[in-house]
This record gives sequence, C-alpha cells and structure tokens, in this order.
Amino acid sequence: MVNNKMVNGINVSQLFSTIDQVKVKPESARFTFRADNAWINGTHNRATIKGFYGALQEDNTRNPMVFDLDEPPVLCGNNLGANPVEYLLAALSGCLTTSLVAHAAAKGIEVKKVESRYEGDIDLQGFLGLSEQVPVGFQTIRVFFRIEADISWEDKQALVAMAQRYSPVFNTITKSAPVTVQLEK
Amino acid sequence: MVNNKMVNGINVSQLFSTIDQVKVKPESARFTFRADNAWINGTHNRATIKGFYGALQEDNTRNPMVFDLDEPPVLCGNNLGANPVEYLLAALSGCLTTSLVAHAAAKGIEVKKVESRYEGDIDLQGFLGLSEQVPVGFQTIRVFFRIEADISWEDKQALVAMAQRYSPVFNTITKSAPVTVQLEK
Repeated sequence: MVNNKMVNGINVSQLFSTIDQVKVKPESARFTFRADNAWINGTHNRATIKGFYGALQEDNTRNPMVFDLDEPPVLCGNNLGANPVEYLLAALSGCLTTSLVAHAAAKGIEVKKVESRYEGDIDLQGFLGLSEQVPVGFQTIRVFFRIEADISWEDKQALVAMAQRYSPVFNTITKSAPVTVQLEK
Repeated sequence: MVNNKMVNGINVSQLFSTIDQVKVKPESARFTFRADNAWINGTHNRATIKGFYGALQEDNTRNPMVFDLDEPPVLCGNNLGANPVEYLLAALSGCLTTSLVAHAAAKGIEVKKVESRYEGDIDLQGFLGLSEQVPVGFQTIRVFFRIEADISWEDKQALVAMAQRYSPVFNTITKSAPVTVQLEK
C-alpha cells in the first residue's frame, strides 16, 4: 500500500521514498538537463527544452517547451520575448520558491502563500566592452520574500534560509559553475 | 539623417550610437531587470516579467510575460512547465547566442545560422541535503555551437570566444554574483 501524504501540494511520501532510494543508490540522484537554441534574427532566438536524464533513465515523455528570447528596442531588439538575464531571474525565482516549499513540506510546515520579487543590477559597459573594471554579468541580485503561514517570524526566516541553502539555481549563481563551450563542425 | 545599417538583423548604427552615448554618460548603461514570482501549488509556480530600468528611465511599455515553472513527476511535479535549472540553461543559451550575433554584427561579420545545445549536470544529493560534498548547483555545463558563415574555422572560434567574454549570463554563472534574500512583512 502506497502512502501519499501531501503537504503544500508536495507528495512527501514520494519525496521521502526518493531520499531513501538515493541513500541506497546515490547515482539515481544524478540528472542532466538540456536545452537547444536556434538563432532567429538579431537579438531574437528560441530555446527548446524537452528530454532529460535522471533517476537512472532517459525521459523523453514531455512535449517540447519553447521559449522566445529577445531584447527591448533600447537594446536593439523587438520585444519578442523576455531577455536572457530576465530568464535568469525567472529561473532563480522558481528555484528559491520550490526549494522553500519542498523543504517546508519535508518538515511538515504548511504555507498558504509564497510571493517573491527579484531585482538584478547590470552595467552594460561590460557587455559593450567599454570597461574592464565593470563585471559583465549581474553586479548584484536582490530578492524579497513574503510568506503567509501560521508560523513565527523566526520560522519564516528559517524557511528563507533553507531556500538559499538548497536551491540549485541560487547556488549556481552565488558559487559559480564551470561552463565549457565548444565549436562543432 | 539617421543611418540604419543592419548586420545579422542588428541595427549596428543604433548599437554604435548607444556605445557613443555610454562613453559620454556611463550611467546610461546601468540597467535593473526584474521578475515577480507567485507560488501556485507543490513544485508549480509562476514568474512574471514586465518593467525594467535602463538608459536613464523606467520602461513599462511591455506586456507582462508569464512563465510557468514546474518539475517532472520523478521530481514530485506535474510537468506544468520547464524546471528552474532548465530555465537557467535557456537563459544561458539566449545570452551566448545574442552576444555572439551582436558582437559579430559590430565587427561586420554576417552569420547565416547559429545553433547551440546545452547540457547541465546536477547531483540532487545537494538539493536533498544528503551530502555536504556535492555542490547544490550545477556541477558543470557543456555548450556546443554550430555556426554557418562564410568565415574560417578560426574566425568562428573567435566568435565563440567573444560570446563567452561578453555574455552577461555566462559571466554571472562562471564568475558568480551576490544574491541577497530578505523576508518582508
């Protein structure tokens, strides 16, 4: 008989059984996610996401998910999509939120509402090659969370700390990750 | 009279006039991009992108762009969107592509086709809190570019190098950026 205890819409029975499986077979925790990109014109290009590897198998069951990226006119684009650094903020927002909600669920803490906003500062002198002093990437990113739950302010702060500790996107951005780029024939 | 020289669909006259403006007023290169996120249920949440600050003014002319983030069933989700680390790969793909195409345009190099694919390895023992040794974020990201253009292999490699040098998302990921997270009442 399968127990399906749900907290915050997360099946914590499944979560704990995944944890047990990973303890026995650590390689089942290894995932490879993928994206393809095709340039369309100017600052407009399109990313497609579909398959991934994880839990010891290939998953090709999802329909392709397509994302248009572009720039606003002030940055030589035509507003045909959010721009790449905005996608990065969207990625961070989803990851901190899911990490917060899932780790709260694992501890049996119910949340009613979780909202957050993101601000990322960037000085395009870096992108434009006009200054070696200015970072090319985001200089700083600020995040503001609001949580509705029947818990204390300190417990809410503990949730926000947990989100930062366990969020893959947060940790990729704050601790860096190596990226190798190859040209193919 | 405004000159509108287009290369790769990029208005290089506008690009060079932006560069001239930034040289005179460096603060016009300062941008702040934003996102909002609202948790829906479980691993499903929704990011919204609309306004930004840049070129010395607020821009609120764009329609809201909405992105659903979720996980596949193996990660306790319902496939209601790509997951956060996949959005990060999409962000990286758009940024490297636009950086490549725009810097090629600035040098007068025409490209016919630019395609790329992305693979990011992650070990979820980090997210699950099962190992302190395993990075929580991406362990490594691999990128593969294919470029069609009437230029030499060495010139294509120079374009790929330029993309890495000037891409904000690439540099955010490989060099890290500070992220502050605050809880609001």
